[in-house]
Amino acid sequence: MTYSVTVRDHIMIAHSLTGETFGPAQRLHGATFVVDATFRAEALDGEGVVVDIGLASEAVRGILSSLSYRNLDDEPAFAGVNTTTERLCGVIADRLVAALREGALGHARLSGIAVTLHESHIAWASYEVAL
Amino acid sequence: MTYSVTVRDHIMIAHSLTGETFGPAQRLHGATFVVDATFRAEALDGEGVVVDIGLASEAVRGILSSLSYRNLDDEPAFAGVNTTTERLCGVIADRLVAALREGALGHARLSGIAVTLHESHIAWASYEVAL
Amino acid sequence: MTYSVTVRDHIMIAHSLTGETFGPAQRLHGATFVVDATFRAEALDGEGVVVDIGLASEAVRGILSSLSYRNLDDEPAFAGVNTTTERLCGVIADRLVAALREGALGHARLSGIAVTLHESHIAWASYEVAL
Amino acid sequence: MTYSVTVRDHIMIAHSLTGETFGPAQRLHGATFVVDATFRAEALDGEGVVVDIGLASEAVRGILSSLSYRNLDDEPAFAGVNTTTERLCGVIADRLVAALREGALGHARLSGIAVTLHESHIAWASYEVAL
Amino acid sequence: MTYSVTVRDHIMIAHSLTGETFGPAQRLHGATFVVDATFRAEALDGEGVVVDIGLASEAVRGILSSLSYRNLDDEPAFAGVNTTTERLCGVIADRLVAALREGALGHARLSGIAVTLHESHIAWASYEVAL
Amino acid sequence: MTYSVTVRDHIMIAHSLTGETFGPAQRLHGATFVVDATFRAEALDGEGVVVDIGLASEAVRGILSSLSYRNLDDEPAFAGVNTTTERLCGVIADRLVAALREGALGHARLSGIAVTLHESHIAWASYEVAL
Repeated sequence: MTYSVTVRDHIMIAHSLTGETFGPAQRLHGATFVVDATFRAEALDGEGVVVDIGLASEAVRGILSSLSYRNLDDEPAFAGVNTTTERLCGVIADRLVAALREGALGHARLSGIAVTLHESHIAWASYEVAL
Repeated sequence: MTYSVTVRDHIMIAHSLTGETFGPAQRLHGATFVVDATFRAEALDGEGVVVDIGLASEAVRGILSSLSYRNLDDEPAFAGVNTTTERLCGVIADRLVAALREGALGHARLSGIAVTLHESHIAWASYEVAL
Repeated sequence: MTYSVTVRDHIMIAHSLTGETFGPAQRLHGATFVVDATFRAEALDGEGVVVDIGLASEAVRGILSSLSYRNLDDEPAFAGVNTTTERLCGVIADRLVAALREGALGHARLSGIAVTLHESHIAWASYEVAL
Repeated sequence: MTYSVTVRDHIMIAHSLTGETFGPAQRLHGATFVVDATFRAEALDGEGVVVDIGLASEAVRGILSSLSYRNLDDEPAFAGVNTTTERLCGVIADRLVAALREGALGHARLSGIAVTLHESHIAWASYEVAL
Repeated sequence: MTYSVTVRDHIMIAHSLTGETFGPAQRLHGATFVVDATFRAEALDGEGVVVDIGLASEAVRGILSSLSYRNLDDEPAFAGVNTTTERLCGVIADRLVAALREGALGHARLSGIAVTLHESHIAWASYEVAL
Repeated sequence: MTYSVTVRDHIMIAHSLTGETFGPAQRLHGATFVVDATFRAEALDGEGVVVDIGLASEAVRGILSSLSYRNLDDEPAFAGVNTTTERLCGVIADRLVAALREGALGHARLSGIAVTLHESHIAWASYEVAL
């Protein structure tokens, strides 16, 4: 028995990917990532929610603001790693877990967080972590 | 190894939410909920299906008819609880489980039911129950 | 030769519709309207845009804020008229035209405005006005 | 902790379904199936990916080419079984597992494969297998 | 100044296309067509609508029922012509015009009808007629 | 009376925009543009189509290949102009018109071409030209 709530937002970034398997994506290019952040809980709280959706949206927005409208190749946080779609899912999810632990999501008792990034109408990636 | 089948339908309801965290949604307002009902099974039946999709669609439609075009604040079934998106997912899923137990889904041997309600293009909720 | 730019937002409202043809929608119910506001121009300005998308989004948001999380049956602006999806398209478009005339969209030289409201995954309405 | 990557493609097929519960779908008709193939892994490889998305897309395309623009009623592979949406999910997923085992997905260390087929805007089916 | 209302439905058909340019689509195959039927008017009626959406949906459903779950190659109405996506748009729109003229859409004073058929997530066609 | 056919594809690019109104988008960032190319005609040809969809898709793919996986700030074709979403719509449409005139679309007798670029789930732009 699991409840979940998902909010959608997006980022627009530049980056390049290192490794021959990336073909033309080795060149500096960019992406819009439509971001779905999912919060799971085994029960609803007294108000009937998984998480305060206002706080959740704000937490997502804050994390995305630190990534958006940037060239990720220049971000120290990503030095030496490829900012693939699946890696960025993990990064955003981990930061949401940190936000949860710092109390930014209020009293929510979550059992999991998942993040999906849609890079186009034909490709997306996800990362899911149990709490 | 799990198969699933999902059918989509929708409801249009009025309601208000109690609690300061809901902000302007404390006022009487409304929502279209696009409803995805998912039926899971570990194997297909002799005809190659998880569930008779005609029966499944009808069961969903019947449950949604009892909710749609109503002010949920006036429904006795929801007295004293917030009709949040996640709560309504649970309510609809529970009624589908009851329908299954009453035979409304035929001989389907389901291992789970999930219900997702999309409240807008940027927010949705789900509830999943194992059977 | 026409350029256009569209931004998407949404409102969540309660209302009822008067007239036998509306069937169950005569009862108090509600809707999420996903709102697409389109701005048309015959040429781009010096910066290469139809309209400052920041100003446009803000204008749309402002107009929608005055409608959202409300019971439209109680709004004086709609006394005696049905707040059908197509009527609300017209109302929002007219308010965008007024915003344009008051300078809220900057120096944009628009040739038309269109507004589409999606009431569900299977129904939507639009209104288009030439300027 | 699971990562996944999904690619979307499609097939257009004719078929008929045997059994009274299928109603008018017992007649020869057809479908576009929009196909989402999902690859899961518990960790990213050295390049930061779940699977080489080029290889994955090619493997999906190859499997779909052997199904698309055909009358499935005439395909020996489906003699005596109904080519329901859920069955086709299983068939495509099994062929992806075979492709993985033959090395067609490179060095990917997958923990699961899932396939979803959308048969319309209101119905879809999935099949998921752990590896 | 134009208002419009659109309703969505779908058909699932088999067919083949004649002519070398169709490549593999010369073989018997099939399609799901997600159908958007748009009704335009220059003004709203006394109830605030372009057309009675109940009547419109029923008229669309009736026309689609005569096409769906069929092999269009066997339909006398299409003898000697290719049932391409664009042609089917025209056929459905023309039948909606006929339905309008027979009074099936009530008193609606329409200025145009448009029909869009989505054959996949990457291709669609439309037909528009002024009245 | 107009027929149209649309095909969807996409590009992934880096760029920056010059001008204070662009706010954070003045920094080097990027976008996925989901591209819808629409071909209009007043009548169908002998095979029942607006345009050979194979040729049309190939023409679109060719034009997009020359833009995708690039930093548009480095492209001589865009020196001194902002590569806004609306401008890129115009550029792609103009190149499709040129392709048509060079015979790349076969014998199609088109009355118009339109191009829409979706930059996210909440913003898109279009350009339409009559022929």
